[in-house]
Amino acid sequence: MSDVIPNEYMDLFEKKSFAHFATLMPDGRPQVTPVWCDFKEGYVRVNSAKGRQKDNNIRRDPRVALAIHDPDNPYRYLEVRGTVEDITEDGAEKHIDALAKKYLGLDRYPLRSEGEVRVIYKIKPEHETHMNVG
Amino acid sequence: MSDVIPNEYMDLFEKKSFAHFATLMPDGRPQVTPVWCDFKEGYVRVNSAKGRQKDNNIRRDPRVALAIHDPDNPYRYLEVRGTVEDITEDGAEKHIDALAKKYLGLDRYPLRSEGEVRVIYKIKPEHETHMNVG
Repeated sequence: MSDVIPNEYMDLFEKKSFAHFATLMPDGRPQVTPVWCDFKEGYVRVNSAKGRQKDNNIRRDPRVALAIHDPDNPYRYLEVRGTVEDITEDGAEKHIDALAKKYLGLDRYPLRSEGEVRVIYKIKPEHETHMNVG
Repeated sequence: MSDVIPNEYMDLFEKKSFAHFATLMPDGRPQVTPVWCDFKEGYVRVNSAKGRQKDNNIRRDPRVALAIHDPDNPYRYLEVRGTVEDITEDGAEKHIDALAKKYLGLDRYPLRSEGEVRVIYKIKPEHETHMNVG
């Protein structure tokens, strides 16, 4: 349950829905890439690795946006704007494995790099828009 | 052809590839929504309507980003960061019809609103990243 996201769009977090995740570059430009996501205890959660562009961006400016589309209908989507309230390594390895299970059906995330430190970003939704055509 | 976008990713503009388009809100936060796009004469082109959030954002700050994913493989995508160098109503009605043809197979864009003024944003690519897994 979320105060911000309509209940009728919460199913997107159960599906293999990609989120397109926008962060801010050092000069304030937007950056956007596809990510896996889920929802837990009021937060949209995204998992990345320490030291990546996205990670550096969020640590500098935690204001982010995501567009999450229904894999069964690209014309049904949810946009969430919010703030990353917590960045944690705690449980991040388990979390990326859980996302690999959800998206790929694998028990273990297959794309780990040597020395990579996984991180969970907990995004507090502050504003949403949605669309459902067809 | 593009100076910035690798040739082996230009096929994305021929496919029914959605772009997730990030712009900047008045306070500098990112905003991101899915859009149709194409590529012509060095520009990624997106079509929207005057007065929408995205339109207001771009007129205030033309720095944008897009992530364009392959409809046949969500793990193959291109990210483009760039600047909207031109905003024009000229040809915008024809352009939205051409996009409706490409994405929906329809001769005419079916979702026009009363009084809507269509606009083309011409985005000059300045930086790209890409990924192709699996």
